[in-house]
Amino acid sequence: MSTIEPRTLKGFRDFLPEQQITRQKLMGIIRASYEGFGFEPLDTPALEYADILTGKYGDEGDKLMYRFRDNGDRDVALRYDLTIPLARVVAQYENDLKKPWKRYQMSPVWRAENTQKGRFREFYQCDADIVGTASPLADAEILALSAQTLTRLGVPAGDFVIRVNSREIISAFYATLGFTLEQQVSAMRAVDKIDKIGAEGVIEELARFGFNPEDTMSIVNFAKNRITDFADISATISLIPEVAGALGSLVGIIRSALILAPGTSFVIDFSIARGLDYYTGIIFETNLVKAPQFGSVMSGGRYDNLVGTFSKKSVPAVGTSIGLDRLLAALEELGVMKAEKTVAKALIVNFDESLAPEYLKMASELRNAGINTVLYFETADLKKQLSYASDKGITFAIMYGANEAKEGTVVVKNLEKGTQEKVKIGEIIKAVSF
Amino acid sequence: MSTIEPRTLKGFRDFLPEQQITRQKLMGIIRASYEGFGFEPLDTPALEYADILTGKYGDEGDKLMYRFRDNGDRDVALRYDLTIPLARVVAQYENDLKKPWKRYQMSPVWRAENTQKGRFREFYQCDADIVGTASPLADAEILALSAQTLTRLGVPAGDFVIRVNSREIISAFYATLGFTLEQQVSAMRAVDKIDKIGAEGVIEELARFGFNPEDTMSIVNFAKNRITDFADISATISLIPEVAGALGSLVGIIRSALILAPGTSFVIDFSIARGLDYYTGIIFETNLVKAPQFGSVMSGGRYDNLVGTFSKKSVPAVGTSIGLDRLLAALEELGVMKAEKTVAKALIVNFDESLAPEYLKMASELRNAGINTVLYFETADLKKQLSYASDKGITFAIMYGANEAKEGTVVVKNLEKGTQEKVKIGEIIKAVSF
Repeated sequence: MSTIEPRTLKGFRDFLPEQQITRQKLMGIIRASYEGFGFEPLDTPALEYADILTGKYGDEGDKLMYRFRDNGDRDVALRYDLTIPLARVVAQYENDLKKPWKRYQMSPVWRAENTQKGRFREFYQCDADIVGTASPLADAEILALSAQTLTRLGVPAGDFVIRVNSREIISAFYATLGFTLEQQVSAMRAVDKIDKIGAEGVIEELARFGFNPEDTMSIVNFAKNRITDFADISATISLIPEVAGALGSLVGIIRSALILAPGTSFVIDFSIARGLDYYTGIIFETNLVKAPQFGSVMSGGRYDNLVGTFSKKSVPAVGTSIGLDRLLAALEELGVMKAEKTVAKALIVNFDESLAPEYLKMASELRNAGINTVLYFETADLKKQLSYASDKGITFAIMYGANEAKEGTVVVKNLEKGTQEKVKIGEIIKAVSF
Repeated sequence: MSTIEPRTLKGFRDFLPEQQITRQKLMGIIRASYEGFGFEPLDTPALEYADILTGKYGDEGDKLMYRFRDNGDRDVALRYDLTIPLARVVAQYENDLKKPWKRYQMSPVWRAENTQKGRFREFYQCDADIVGTASPLADAEILALSAQTLTRLGVPAGDFVIRVNSREIISAFYATLGFTLEQQVSAMRAVDKIDKIGAEGVIEELARFGFNPEDTMSIVNFAKNRITDFADISATISLIPEVAGALGSLVGIIRSALILAPGTSFVIDFSIARGLDYYTGIIFETNLVKAPQFGSVMSGGRYDNLVGTFSKKSVPAVGTSIGLDRLLAALEELGVMKAEKTVAKALIVNFDESLAPEYLKMASELRNAGINTVLYFETADLKKQLSYASDKGITFAIMYGANEAKEGTVVVKNLEKGTQEKVKIGEIIKAVSF
């Protein structure tokens, strides 16, 4: 039989232990942070009926969806994000879910992205959302949760900036220009690209959409506003009085968030638009000060009408989403995450087949004491076994040969420090626990 | 706009918090158990090139695969199990992976099963495999790991039986009947169904495959052998001397496993065949004594030729697999798993909007002390807020209104016990930590 070439699909990745150990550590920290705020876990299927997903992400989203006919000729698609499945769940179990409901989900999503831009087709999202309340305290908690999660992951409060805006502010301003809803959406989509294509690019894009030069300049100048002093917003309000109400609410939300997550750098940035159609209130993105090239690592907003797609009852909601793989890449770049090669702490060297029962007993004792332990299966020479352990990053080698068996001792070698000590056989656990 | 009916595909499930909290707890225990033995985590893509997966699970497997053409017209399929992706990874990263390699993976797999039999089309497998050694100690570790994981999950050693057999024993016996390889596979497939269709059913099945009555009776009688006394296997060997070698090896493996996992009920059961073609050595299944209706909750075996499908280099391997959802259902039936409705321990009652900054401060303090805390967002009446908390299973309600604000106190109500106490505002954490 000829062999099949082992290979992965473009845009899909295997995570070998050295990467996966770190990823799991990251997910553990994110989970603890989310649960600290009382968010509860949800899991939804990878596959959904296609009509559940289509039409919510814009034309581009529909094009990038993995959509096919299943064995029963159903029109199905792979999950594209975690927000639409949440909206479906909220509508589907309307009576079972006590609201307000705080839920989180950490799962892969699939998009047939252009891999030449370094994008992946399968990646994890870690989402936390509050469903069933329009309270600004919920928006504040989402912002604070985002900030605290990053801090817990090892990024100090000064090293990231959460750029916040509000669809209500944008709409209030665009209304002064007399834009239709359609024009508002076009303008927002163009402005949303400002980080990628610059102000010049946005101006060209707006011209293409048919905006006149005057409106174009108004849109771009508006997008340049930044507020970092939340004690006094009178200057901005005197310039654009129409946004006073919406801006006041946003500042209130940020003040509350700062009580929960003191020291966080929030900036109100009128250029933040978020491409997705479904946002209705607060919107935000998060950039790392020392690794801006990774773009936004955490973003979200309020979407009060999305559940209404699946139900006659409208349910307000607000949430945040971490792109796990992008964040991990950034944290590695920043040196915040130290890769670990193995989960094992000790290796029992195998000198002699006849001693196997003793080795098994030792392994069992160490494991019962909570020390992750590997037994070398073959009686290879000592050097080979020790280099296996040090290559893997295992700290301790436990050596027990014929002599030690006679003496009732064990040699415990610390491979990191290059030291070793002989201890009584009953004292192995003490010797490896410090 | 008309609403879209919120629904899930047949055979696919949403896991709401009450179920998902328990699932995650289970996965955490399994992970700790696997890591205790030094197994390292791996993650592989949900989608693979179809030719990686097809032809390894028998005709039925190929039929049940979710296979389609992606946007780039590639022939792709959703992961059907975690063993084939492991074999691919071992071949693909041949030089990067230090062997022996212990890896685990806990991921969903997809099979277009008949849902009328209560089967699911998306379910989690939790696999642990040792790759790159033919040592019987590796087989022993896989058996012991299986046993210890179940014990850790709350099933006492006496409450489950690991039924073990060996493809080598089966082959040695079938060779005495002069069977071709093809006949051996047919006979094994028929015997594998003995738990479902009984001895009579197997006899019919063997007749259909063209075995003569005499061979049929030999096969069935052979499959009835059971060994529970591993100190003395002479009786079995005197009956079927041809299996002496393979049986001796298997008994050695079980003896080693018993050192690692004392008290485990192992049974050598010659009817265990395992449907999959790729097994070459030890094979096993695990049944719960008090919940036999769930069938095998944990199974596996040795497969020394599978990596060879993807590489010219043959790499021996042995592993175990837990069907998470089936096991969870069984543990719930046995009352071993207590469902938890929420992750939150405390709710801060919202009496007064003007006190929001104090509520946020309290929430922050409690969370920083590791107490998962929810703040009620609206100032609804007290009864509604308390019933929200007790419905969710939150233990403590923290009450702070205008009077308490004046006094600098807080009322902490224990909703489980129905007691409450007034404490100083600085002592909340103490009051909820016991």
